[in-house]
Amino acid sequence: MKAEIIAVGTELLLGQIVNTNAQFLAQELAGIGVDVYFQTVVGDNKQRLQQTFHLAQSRADLIVCTGGLGPTQDDLTKDALAEFTGRQLISDPTSEERIITFFQERKAKMVESNLRQALILTDSDPLPNETGLAVGVGLTHQGTHYLLLPGPPGEMKTMFNLHAKRWIQAKFTDEAPLHSKLLKFAGIGESALEHELLDLIEQQSDVTIAPYAKEGEVTVRLTVKAATRTEAEQRMEHMESAIRSRLGQHLYADQDIGIEETVVQLLIKKGLTLSSAESCTGGLFAETVTSVPGSSQVFIGGMVAYTNQMKQQLGIPASMLTAEGAPGAVSEETATLLAERMREKTDSDFSISFTGVAGPAMSEGKPVGLVYVGIASKHGPSETYELRLNGNRELIRIKAVKHALYRVWRKLEEY
Amino acid sequence: MKAEIIAVGTELLLGQIVNTNAQFLAQELAGIGVDVYFQTVVGDNKQRLQQTFHLAQSRADLIVCTGGLGPTQDDLTKDALAEFTGRQLISDPTSEERIITFFQERKAKMVESNLRQALILTDSDPLPNETGLAVGVGLTHQGTHYLLLPGPPGEMKTMFNLHAKRWIQAKFTDEAPLHSKLLKFAGIGESALEHELLDLIEQQSDVTIAPYAKEGEVTVRLTVKAATRTEAEQRMEHMESAIRSRLGQHLYADQDIGIEETVVQLLIKKGLTLSSAESCTGGLFAETVTSVPGSSQVFIGGMVAYTNQMKQQLGIPASMLTAEGAPGAVSEETATLLAERMREKTDSDFSISFTGVAGPAMSEGKPVGLVYVGIASKHGPSETYELRLNGNRELIRIKAVKHALYRVWRKLEEY
Repeated sequence: MKAEIIAVGTELLLGQIVNTNAQFLAQELAGIGVDVYFQTVVGDNKQRLQQTFHLAQSRADLIVCTGGLGPTQDDLTKDALAEFTGRQLISDPTSEERIITFFQERKAKMVESNLRQALILTDSDPLPNETGLAVGVGLTHQGTHYLLLPGPPGEMKTMFNLHAKRWIQAKFTDEAPLHSKLLKFAGIGESALEHELLDLIEQQSDVTIAPYAKEGEVTVRLTVKAATRTEAEQRMEHMESAIRSRLGQHLYADQDIGIEETVVQLLIKKGLTLSSAESCTGGLFAETVTSVPGSSQVFIGGMVAYTNQMKQQLGIPASMLTAEGAPGAVSEETATLLAERMREKTDSDFSISFTGVAGPAMSEGKPVGLVYVGIASKHGPSETYELRLNGNRELIRIKAVKHALYRVWRKLEEY
Repeated sequence: MKAEIIAVGTELLLGQIVNTNAQFLAQELAGIGVDVYFQTVVGDNKQRLQQTFHLAQSRADLIVCTGGLGPTQDDLTKDALAEFTGRQLISDPTSEERIITFFQERKAKMVESNLRQALILTDSDPLPNETGLAVGVGLTHQGTHYLLLPGPPGEMKTMFNLHAKRWIQAKFTDEAPLHSKLLKFAGIGESALEHELLDLIEQQSDVTIAPYAKEGEVTVRLTVKAATRTEAEQRMEHMESAIRSRLGQHLYADQDIGIEETVVQLLIKKGLTLSSAESCTGGLFAETVTSVPGSSQVFIGGMVAYTNQMKQQLGIPASMLTAEGAPGAVSEETATLLAERMREKTDSDFSISFTGVAGPAMSEGKPVGLVYVGIASKHGPSETYELRLNGNRELIRIKAVKHALYRVWRKLEEY
């Protein structure tokens, strides 16, 4: 099955928002074995929208459209498709009732145009909107399948996951569905990972392997065509264990979660606590860890010791920072002591420290990208890692934090 | 002039990356008065790429294409356009020399395919790549203008700003160019801002006003068609001062910078220092401030007092946190004292504190979204603000931080 993704909205054409809907749908469609050959963005203009439908139905079996389902006169997607397919717009009674109830419960005045959000096409399937008011539409017309989904990403994703995905799958029951699984890696770059798996990637047949990288983490997607999930799991197992035997010490999860979630979950499970003392990362480590719900059980607290004054308050002697011939703020010695002092101060099981040069300018004559990560432990000697990172200020900070989380994860695994 | 943006890359069709290039180009083209009616994404496939060129030249005067200029056999954009327009690929001598020098200087072996990156089309203009190896192309063929830009966003943006923009502007010298100016607002939501400017928006004619929001900040773009920048400035001035007279206390910049940059610059200018004590924001305030280069001159340091243990270490008495009938960790009293203690500890001019419920669950029986922001000052009494924020955990944290930066900016303006 070949698909085309159409996003409707002048705000996309003006660059006011980025088309994350297309990315989500592309990933989801790839995951269920639908090939996407084109994505199009078109404005809130009925004629150009119909031109786009015309072209898309000539080259795709499935057209997934996002946006333009709202209450205003600018929301034209349903009107355009109705005209294009020669169908009528009719009200979906369930959706209409939901809209009326919504306004009644809030004691808010409902204007007539809000009922436009309950419209579907004749002989089409309504797709319930669990998180908004505009109903979605599934329509098969002259052999082409059309899906109209709302534009707000939260509504669109929920509707896709709960209703649209199943609607698509029912349209191609003759093909065996695709199943996929994500393996997540930390502490290794994309090219090093590819190098380790090169023969597996080149010889892939039944189970396909696709690695891709984003800031400080690498993901590998395994995909297989199989009648059932159980069969798919069995056929992926061989490949997964081959990968695990080579890169097991970097493979931290077999689902789409960040290394920070894995670390927080392990700390909770083992009843251990964490703290941090950050210089060049400026609080990003604490922010990343505390972005995980439940982290308050394990993260005692952190210090952003951005200046030497703050480092001295934490117990780093001036003789180590600024004296003639001292190692300096950016040094292995300072990283180690920062972690140790913070661990003592908070009485946590582990404390992580960062000191380095995030750029754009050098510091203490040391190069941009040089970062020291210290790990102090209640249960063993301290360790310090010297990193040489590339990228801009933001990327250097992210990579340093992800690398530190990788080191904490390794420690917890061995613990 | 009508334009179409084409992004080339199978990784976009698979959803492995999001098409931020299209957003950047859409904004930039809108800024110089070029209307974009369609955006298309197509894979690394010569035939489908040529179909896309064919369609685009039928409905646009300018086609801006990103991606597919690299050294590998997958990089087909130049080949496809050469075939489509019946032109030859020739080597641009300057680019060829740059590539050879690049490898020589790094003492790295250059494979022949790297020289593909120096290719342009006959009678086309090479667009220098200042941050990468693949040269860009500007070509006018049968009345349609084609621009081929690299896919990596850093290279693409630099090439656009330094070369492609001027190339486009030279193609439509007969039209008066558009000039635009951004006004940035903090401490006010998009709908409240729109409400204040409603009559100006409805009566807009010569100078257009377009507000748009992103996490915790609102931007207004003024645009006018004028022969020169000076004339444009004059015609925008009236509108800008009308907006300023209504919303001046929220208007923190007339260029595209974050409130954190404005705050850091003002602190540097006035020789003042800042520190922070964060609970629910978990380090995001410190991280946001220190993301600005030069912040080490003014940001002394921060504390992430995530647990009551850490709050007590900073000097908040248990009687205030956990005792029967105490205000609790999430309270105005705790916010004020956190800021005051941190200010004393660091001897900074100002200290900002955060305590609240970022969610997903309630805390101390207090609702998700309730956040207290404290501001202690060396030069006056402390202030504490109670915020009721909506959104998920991440958004609540971002909004709290942006609001606090707004309050600091107001304080600095009055100082």
